[in-house]
Amino acid sequence: MEKKSVIILGATGSIGLQTLEVIKKLPDFELSGIVFGKNLTLARKIIKENKIENYYSPFYPNYKFSSLEEFLENLKPNIVVSAIPGFDGMISSLKAIKYTKRLALATKEALVCAGPFVKQECKKFNVELIPIDSEHSAIFQIFDNFVERIMITASGGAVRNIKTGKLSKLTPKDILKHPVWNMGKRITVDSSTMVNKAFEVMEAYELFETNNIDVYIHPTGTVHGAVLLKDGTVKIHFGFPDMKIPIAYSLTYPERKYINTNWPEFSSKNFEFYEVDKEKYPAFFYGKTILNDLSKRIAFNAADEIAVERFLKEEIKFTQISEIIIKTCEQIKGKVNSIDDIIEIDKISRKYAKNI
Amino acid sequence: MEKKSVIILGATGSIGLQTLEVIKKLPDFELSGIVFGKNLTLARKIIKENKIENYYSPFYPNYKFSSLEEFLENLKPNIVVSAIPGFDGMISSLKAIKYTKRLALATKEALVCAGPFVKQECKKFNVELIPIDSEHSAIFQIFDNFVERIMITASGGAVRNIKTGKLSKLTPKDILKHPVWNMGKRITVDSSTMVNKAFEVMEAYELFETNNIDVYIHPTGTVHGAVLLKDGTVKIHFGFPDMKIPIAYSLTYPERKYINTNWPEFSSKNFEFYEVDKEKYPAFFYGKTILNDLSKRIAFNAADEIAVERFLKEEIKFTQISEIIIKTCEQIKGKVNSIDDIIEIDKISRKYAKNI
Repeated sequence: MEKKSVIILGATGSIGLQTLEVIKKLPDFELSGIVFGKNLTLARKIIKENKIENYYSPFYPNYKFSSLEEFLENLKPNIVVSAIPGFDGMISSLKAIKYTKRLALATKEALVCAGPFVKQECKKFNVELIPIDSEHSAIFQIFDNFVERIMITASGGAVRNIKTGKLSKLTPKDILKHPVWNMGKRITVDSSTMVNKAFEVMEAYELFETNNIDVYIHPTGTVHGAVLLKDGTVKIHFGFPDMKIPIAYSLTYPERKYINTNWPEFSSKNFEFYEVDKEKYPAFFYGKTILNDLSKRIAFNAADEIAVERFLKEEIKFTQISEIIIKTCEQIKGKVNSIDDIIEIDKISRKYAKNI
Repeated sequence: MEKKSVIILGATGSIGLQTLEVIKKLPDFELSGIVFGKNLTLARKIIKENKIENYYSPFYPNYKFSSLEEFLENLKPNIVVSAIPGFDGMISSLKAIKYTKRLALATKEALVCAGPFVKQECKKFNVELIPIDSEHSAIFQIFDNFVERIMITASGGAVRNIKTGKLSKLTPKDILKHPVWNMGKRITVDSSTMVNKAFEVMEAYELFETNNIDVYIHPTGTVHGAVLLKDGTVKIHFGFPDMKIPIAYSLTYPERKYINTNWPEFSSKNFEFYEVDKEKYPAFFYGKTILNDLSKRIAFNAADEIAVERFLKEEIKFTQISEIIIKTCEQIKGKVNSIDDIIEIDKISRKYAKNI
């Protein structure tokens, strides 16, 4: 059997690095190239260690490919793992669709800010869209035609056991300890505001085309999601939080070729679920109300990025992150007809969020 | 679309009656006939209420069909729901395979005592074998090619919270209160000895062709089973204990046409699991050691039926049920080459179990 070729967009990030590890354990897959950003030191290490012949970075253009498109067109990979964070990731995901058969998607902005465009392009070019994020991978793995509701879980972040009244005093240092997953700074803050979970609800709305999405706080992170079927059956996806598993699944789907027979215990502590506190996580609840308003979703993402930056610089309080997001979204209205519209709304939103 | 015709073997029993209810709620299915045993009063009521033209009972042969085969051959149903309890159910299941496209199987003896024969006949006549029992239906619904282990749950029966030292004093009256499911007398006793769960492990062994079957005590009966996959993923089947759901699934598979959007809560009380106590349930643990010995499985079933009868008549103590089963199985050896062999081993085992 011919090996399936994989390109990683964002090879120096957490998902990128774990994808590298996963590919080494999957004999039927081979890495045919990487794309990276500014982290040249790490990129060089990866290129050397993995003997990578083809790579591209927009920040170091002195290589054989003059653009991402040229790079992708030359390699025509079977699978593109799209894991460039932020708004750049959305643009490169959209570009990648034309040159591959499968988009394994980790970049949340692609669906949050451009869901309808990404799906339209995938349909046009007959490309499979497979989510990598653990919650969406979980739902994807158990989804069928008889789903009435979707359930995904949230850790509740660093503030889960802190009283709402005390949130405004939390410093960046307090927040940057996350209980389950080991992640970057923005996603760690987003996890504590549950803004990340609002993004995931938006992504699930695009992927599974339903508004019926419930979220529960679940401390152990062992249940990633569930589907509630129309005959009273619930299928639950359960397993240790380990991103390598959904990454591998996004490559090997519909098969499972990654070996890891290490399952969590069937004990009730691995099945604790709590309602999400409305007072503690206002941005999350706001985010759930704007699922079908793409312009507000773009604003939500942009404002969050700015607000988190401002919180990390200690310009604003923790509780002001949500305030900035909601205020920004309330300013943004209108249809989104193109990628240019997305970029424009993003710019306006960032500017607004900076000046609140 | 033409309606799918269903025949119920064992229409006056609990599964039979619930199947009647389910069919009424499924517009694409129609009841084309019933088979019943000695309960003529109830059968007449069913026949009248459902305007059933075709029926058969071996105990009341004064009707237009002289045998079960003739009845089945005339009706050629799309689906046979096989729910005659006991050894007769095994024989009629085997007969039904020749005249249908799908065997929806509730009779445990068919797989416990004749698993290889039933599977062989289904293969020969290209008949789908769909389990009805809630645990097996659950596993069937979530099973795939990447399963490493299977998990099914047990209620632990009426003795769950009783100390092992006190079991020998329990009367039939003590036992005949079962916490989750509403069932007949034998199955209620079998639930307390967990002999029913040993049967289910044997059935799962036949259906899913694996020895890797774990059982946990699970008081709420909301998790019916789980599959542990080779990549670390676990899929769990969760839902209220309601036999109508697996019955409907056995008819509508691969679709879900039965409507019941009533799901249990995601709360940790619905996810309590305990190890099975070796001292309390010796017959269960013995049963798990004889999976690949069909002759001992036949003896296990026969001895249990006799022992439960003797317990219900207060001839023996509750704890002696397990003793009789294990002693009987230890006497039985040898290959099972035919249905006649099954019948012979069953007879010998019953005789032995009566005289212990």
